[in-house]
Amino acid sequence: MAVNSPLPVAADLKPVNGIEIGFAQAGIKKPNRKDLLVMKLAPGATVAGVFTKNRFCAAPVQVSKANLAAVADGGAPIVALVVNTGNANAGTGESGLANANQTCAALAALLGCGAQQILPFSTGVILEPLPVDRIVAGLPAAVANLTLDNWFNAAEAIMTTDTQPKAASRTVVIDGHSVTMTGISKGAGMIKPNMATMLGYLAFDAKVAQPVLDQLVRHAADHSFNCITIDGDTSTNDSFMLIATGAGSLEIADIDSPHYEALRDAVTDLARGLAQMIIRDGEGATKFITITIEQGGSVEECRKIAYSIAHSPLVKTAFFASDPNLGRILAAIGYAGVDDLDVTKLDMYLDDVWVAQSGGRNPDYQEADGQRVMQQSEITVRVTLGRGNASATVWTCDLSHEYVTINADYRS
Amino acid sequence: MAVNSPLPVAADLKPVNGIEIGFAQAGIKKPNRKDLLVMKLAPGATVAGVFTKNRFCAAPVQVSKANLAAVADGGAPIVALVVNTGNANAGTGESGLANANQTCAALAALLGCGAQQILPFSTGVILEPLPVDRIVAGLPAAVANLTLDNWFNAAEAIMTTDTQPKAASRTVVIDGHSVTMTGISKGAGMIKPNMATMLGYLAFDAKVAQPVLDQLVRHAADHSFNCITIDGDTSTNDSFMLIATGAGSLEIADIDSPHYEALRDAVTDLARGLAQMIIRDGEGATKFITITIEQGGSVEECRKIAYSIAHSPLVKTAFFASDPNLGRILAAIGYAGVDDLDVTKLDMYLDDVWVAQSGGRNPDYQEADGQRVMQQSEITVRVTLGRGNASATVWTCDLSHEYVTINADYRS
Repeated sequence: MAVNSPLPVAADLKPVNGIEIGFAQAGIKKPNRKDLLVMKLAPGATVAGVFTKNRFCAAPVQVSKANLAAVADGGAPIVALVVNTGNANAGTGESGLANANQTCAALAALLGCGAQQILPFSTGVILEPLPVDRIVAGLPAAVANLTLDNWFNAAEAIMTTDTQPKAASRTVVIDGHSVTMTGISKGAGMIKPNMATMLGYLAFDAKVAQPVLDQLVRHAADHSFNCITIDGDTSTNDSFMLIATGAGSLEIADIDSPHYEALRDAVTDLARGLAQMIIRDGEGATKFITITIEQGGSVEECRKIAYSIAHSPLVKTAFFASDPNLGRILAAIGYAGVDDLDVTKLDMYLDDVWVAQSGGRNPDYQEADGQRVMQQSEITVRVTLGRGNASATVWTCDLSHEYVTINADYRS
Repeated sequence: MAVNSPLPVAADLKPVNGIEIGFAQAGIKKPNRKDLLVMKLAPGATVAGVFTKNRFCAAPVQVSKANLAAVADGGAPIVALVVNTGNANAGTGESGLANANQTCAALAALLGCGAQQILPFSTGVILEPLPVDRIVAGLPAAVANLTLDNWFNAAEAIMTTDTQPKAASRTVVIDGHSVTMTGISKGAGMIKPNMATMLGYLAFDAKVAQPVLDQLVRHAADHSFNCITIDGDTSTNDSFMLIATGAGSLEIADIDSPHYEALRDAVTDLARGLAQMIIRDGEGATKFITITIEQGGSVEECRKIAYSIAHSPLVKTAFFASDPNLGRILAAIGYAGVDDLDVTKLDMYLDDVWVAQSGGRNPDYQEADGQRVMQQSEITVRVTLGRGNASATVWTCDLSHEYVTINADYRS
């Protein structure tokens, strides 16, 4: 049960000209579920991505990075993306790389392009061999149902422990040019993206030059998927991909284009919504928590403190219990690693309730006020540091019995 | 129920000449429980401590540090330590400091010494005012029952969410001199000590010069309380105190004494046992996990990786479930922050089972073997990095439903 996150409506997900989607039930881990996704791009599309910084980055991540680098070096453009669930193909060594490349070759043969023009992605259990034969066997069915209209199916096809598909769509008009954008994401555990979430794909129909798209994807990730955490576990497979199909009339050739900022903000806004959907559907989540740190000396120290609060099991269980045991938040701030933090300049608020003042309990703070806010399903923790003008926001969820149940049972 | 950690036997806890112990039921948070402890030292005793690095360090920690510094500056020696449970006196600002000092003054009046000669300690809920009147009212009873024989009562008096008291004792003979040492510790949650655990006290009857004791306490902490974690939450009140009563015949005047290493190793060994008792009694713990990282480029990077594994909620829930979902360990290694880690040189073992080889699954690894080890109550994860000769070990426990229950209910 996601927190205040209604199921996306298939009819609300707008097709994006220039990208066709197909899916299949390949039986990769379990039968009778969509577990294979193909996204085919029109000629002229550009693709940019950010990937996990986990040193155990998965074989498909390594292959996708190499294939994008080949494009940057003047190679043929990307033609399609392929995603499987049920197996992460991570911690799989040389045979894992061979399996990822074999997946690309099989899809390339079906689409009449080079294997290097395919970007592969996997998500699921780590340290288990990829059943590449099932993927190869499933690809023809996925290619056979390629259509512009499959975004809802795409969102379903990339789910693992997600309780619901995650997708969003919008159309913006920039200087008279209509731009349609649709994105999907997945993830519910092993979520502390370090460049992107488990998997996110966002396509729009403007034409965007590669260097601009490279910059845009980093901006969007830094303000969306890189601001969320469920359990502090950075996945081996995190990938966030931005696709500019070029099928629409808006063209952005360089970063100084007068339309760049408008497009960037619209894309970032949609990406932020997709990222927050992951938190709302976090494993066992019952609450959606926004943590904002203000008046910091740098964005980096604000993020450090925000993540320290967001990762504390004690803070997260207090939210689950609706218990205003707010000293746990102070403790998490104190061990965040900001070594010269002067706690006597620090204030803390829970929504509109002023809890801590100058590092101690606000004399006017009443437990009943804290209790009232803690019972809500959406809560903002705001901390002011009195050190400068920087700020940062991180979104997270609580830690419940259900989280333990899900992760104790995930493979069985 | 602590993991393989029998209840200490009161008769096995040896009195240490030169330190008398008294306790009381002061009703600080709840009635009818021992919640106040006084330890009175004989003239000639030396005291050294390590304290939390949490920036929100509690008022009593600030006062204890200041009072130890006064001794170092030539002030009168420490006469007694006083510990209360039920309230951490942290996040309490100026009034918290006044309350800690008032506690010292009240005990000093009873013992006929200066307030600066008292070291105060508190543990319990953060951000709530210390009920100092109840502490002051309880002190006469604690002083009245001062005796050499109260170590078991002392261990009980400092418990909070601990399910059982933690204490250990031993006598070593160093070059013909008998040294008796007894220690107690407490802690079950908010445990990732950064210099020491929530509370640990270890006394012995050798005479040790202050500079030697200062060095000894850091060594002992670094090899015991600084190698454990339950939930990654560094407390505001961590303190580990070493007391050399000087009542015995062994004297160590400087660090080059031929007997220093023998004493250091005996003290460290006892401290390690006390630290491990905290993990065995970790909130909701069902398993005791040893994580050893070998062949690292530095001890620091080994510790980083060990803590990354030890803090991963996904790894901890897999241990709880006895599920050999060991790819989660690889993911935690990968995001530990060792940026130039070459995973192709990495091997991983679960007890005697060789799981990962050169960064991928060992072809001979059988799930049944991993399953067998995961069902044990004591498990060692050993990772070899192939980068150098450094190593580090960290002890932790699993993450169970009971952890969530305890921490969702702690204050109620």
